[in-house]
Amino acid sequence: MTVDTLLYEGKAKKVYATDDAEVVKVSYKDDATAFNGVKRGQIAGKGAVNNQMSNLLFTYLEANGVNTHLVEQLSERETLVKKVQIVPIEVVVRNIAAGTFSKRLGVMEGVDLPHPIVEFYLKNDELGDPLITDDHALVLGLATSSELAALREQALTVNRLLQAKFAACQLILVDFKLEFGKQSDGAIVLADEISPDTCRLWDSETRKKLDKDRFRQDLGDVEDAYQEVFARLTAIS
Amino acid sequence: MTVDTLLYEGKAKKVYATDDAEVVKVSYKDDATAFNGVKRGQIAGKGAVNNQMSNLLFTYLEANGVNTHLVEQLSERETLVKKVQIVPIEVVVRNIAAGTFSKRLGVMEGVDLPHPIVEFYLKNDELGDPLITDDHALVLGLATSSELAALREQALTVNRLLQAKFAACQLILVDFKLEFGKQSDGAIVLADEISPDTCRLWDSETRKKLDKDRFRQDLGDVEDAYQEVFARLTAIS
Repeated sequence: MTVDTLLYEGKAKKVYATDDAEVVKVSYKDDATAFNGVKRGQIAGKGAVNNQMSNLLFTYLEANGVNTHLVEQLSERETLVKKVQIVPIEVVVRNIAAGTFSKRLGVMEGVDLPHPIVEFYLKNDELGDPLITDDHALVLGLATSSELAALREQALTVNRLLQAKFAACQLILVDFKLEFGKQSDGAIVLADEISPDTCRLWDSETRKKLDKDRFRQDLGDVEDAYQEVFARLTAIS
Repeated sequence: MTVDTLLYEGKAKKVYATDDAEVVKVSYKDDATAFNGVKRGQIAGKGAVNNQMSNLLFTYLEANGVNTHLVEQLSERETLVKKVQIVPIEVVVRNIAAGTFSKRLGVMEGVDLPHPIVEFYLKNDELGDPLITDDHALVLGLATSSELAALREQALTVNRLLQAKFAACQLILVDFKLEFGKQSDGAIVLADEISPDTCRLWDSETRKKLDKDRFRQDLGDVEDAYQEVFARLTAIS
């Protein structure tokens, strides 16, 4: 394997080898997909926003005791991260009803949940990333019982930290999706990204959507929303 | 409200008032539905089998410490049961992969699960009875945390007892759905029915399906399968 070999291309990122076997380079794309790849498009500048915003938030989380895959930002779109094996469970935290939660359970979007909830989804595009229970994760051999407890606890910690960060720039954190990765030493760290692709963020005052729902629902001003979130975060960081 | 007022008509049963406010009369129909009412038909004699088989199994479960809604069988199709408020959670126990478990999670039908699992579904036809997590049940106010623990424990107890009963008549209990009801005194008891409509049952030797999957999948011999299960159970009871 040589430096800059493309290891993997996902819907929003490319991953390349580096000269360090424990480190890979991630390059963020402007490609946008929704509804499990059914809707496709481009959001100009998204790759640069998501890369820098993710790094800003991962740095903040690290400073508050959350271990992440972040190594070093290389450029607007490129970052070095620890090479991890992604845990095939997408971890979603919800503070307010929206998206599939509202649709599946018949709860109107915008309803405050009495407490934050954590959901696990099987990371499998072919199956449409189905919701799973702890028992499903166990019998499918996706994680151990203590790993699930750790994922849930980490997700709630990240939620508390992100809620505070976003509140400071007049954004409501409605819900978000996290992915975790296992290092070669077995340690599980926060991986993937935290961006308007993976979070629902509403303006605290107007409740205007400033996230990928603008793309999903054809609400317009998609690029502006991504830039706005990033500008607000950098202004307070 | 007078005696024999129709209180409720479901997909497979009618419920009537009696002269005792705490007791209702259930009358089992031959109507069969599947895929949330999309497929409809009749299975001759099903009502009589399901009523008698349910009562036989509820009597067995009661004798083994499980509280149920059963009061007294009146006829082939009619039974008196305690009037309860149905908990809006369908409780599914799975021993072997099949049905929606196989489809949603990509596990081949017939694969033994390493241990029995309990799933909760929101009882809501309009929403298609979606799978829910404990957190969903809590934030939707469907049950308390200790009630969920009790449902799970009761379901696993019922599973152990039913597995033994069915094994004794050469049937494999693949999975089944339970419903629970709250009495006026707040006690939660096993309600609804246990029948080939609500259980997947396979012949131990041939693995021939002897349950509602014969109707769902147009496998033929539907009536015979229901009669066969009931005949085997009565032969050992």
